[in-house]
Amino acid sequence: MHVDTTGRLRRQLAFLGEIDRLKLVLRRTPVADGSRQENSAEHSWHLAVAAVVLAEHAAPDVAVERALQMVVVHDLVEIDAGDTFAYDAAANLGRVEREILAAERLFGMLPDDQREVFRALWDEFEAGETPVARFAIALDRLQPLLVNDLANGGSWRAHGVSRAQVLARMRPIERAIPALWPLVLEIVDRNCERGHIMVETR
Amino acid sequence: MHVDTTGRLRRQLAFLGEIDRLKLVLRRTPVADGSRQENSAEHSWHLAVAAVVLAEHAAPDVAVERALQMVVVHDLVEIDAGDTFAYDAAANLGRVEREILAAERLFGMLPDDQREVFRALWDEFEAGETPVARFAIALDRLQPLLVNDLANGGSWRAHGVSRAQVLARMRPIERAIPALWPLVLEIVDRNCERGHIMVETR
Repeated sequence: MHVDTTGRLRRQLAFLGEIDRLKLVLRRTPVADGSRQENSAEHSWHLAVAAVVLAEHAAPDVAVERALQMVVVHDLVEIDAGDTFAYDAAANLGRVEREILAAERLFGMLPDDQREVFRALWDEFEAGETPVARFAIALDRLQPLLVNDLANGGSWRAHGVSRAQVLARMRPIERAIPALWPLVLEIVDRNCERGHIMVETR
Repeated sequence: MHVDTTGRLRRQLAFLGEIDRLKLVLRRTPVADGSRQENSAEHSWHLAVAAVVLAEHAAPDVAVERALQMVVVHDLVEIDAGDTFAYDAAANLGRVEREILAAERLFGMLPDDQREVFRALWDEFEAGETPVARFAIALDRLQPLLVNDLANGGSWRAHGVSRAQVLARMRPIERAIPALWPLVLEIVDRNCERGHIMVETR
């Protein structure tokens, strides 16, 4: 039992109010109808439903509960650090340092034990070494593939992303959700044919 | 083992593409900085993080995994049926029928076994009779309280909602997360004092 339940609750509600700002962090990917950019909060929700739907294709030792917790928490650091476009190498310099400071501030709003729980979820996602983290990362790669495909190429077309870049980005799906890989290739090839993904000439 | 894994995956990806539309369903509540209305996808994400943070205050038989699954699925029917403002009695006529049709269409996009899983999650939420559904409903009431409080009264002020209406709407929190009730009353009273919630005169 916690002695000061009301004190804990005040910290927890302050944290829940603060994280509302994730709804204001815009990603490069659009929503599927192409009408606007998507934000990191609705992106995180999309990953959570995907985790429920696709869990049967993950490795048998992936706990769905931990995957769900991980995907809804994984982008919170963007509240301070911003979303970094995956295909922009320069913008990715210093990303880790900015995100660590963000994790310390944001998760530090929670009671100490929960700060550790949230930090451990985020660290595990970032390290990408456990089956559940690999599954969560695969979902985080799959979701922009689905919305870009529906939105006529979305951020691929807007930024001239190449087939090799997309395939390198999608590669974690092959290991974490192997049954999905042929469909990923099918979507990538369709978007190459449509001119939405650049095909390299040699 | 499923024989036609690729066929299952095609249905699952089509469903994940279709539900992107929840990002376009606007609620009456604003985001916390008041800059725009929030949508039902980011709202659902907010509930998911709240479920992780506040689970310790729920009844001991609330399984966090099921609560997480329930909150990320609970608003999907709004893709067809729209969001219905809680304080608009007329708009709530026919809501249940519209939402049942939506559930049949949307969950029917999934493989049959998953259609049943999603339908059961939504039915359980709507019935509100199990501890986990009561916890999920309490979070669904708490979240707009938090954003309205941060956004200078938000939908309460915009629509002239009264203290009695807000308290009736918040009442499920008292049973599902009793430790939180004094803080709910504190937030409601603060917003009455500020004129953001109408105080009835007798």
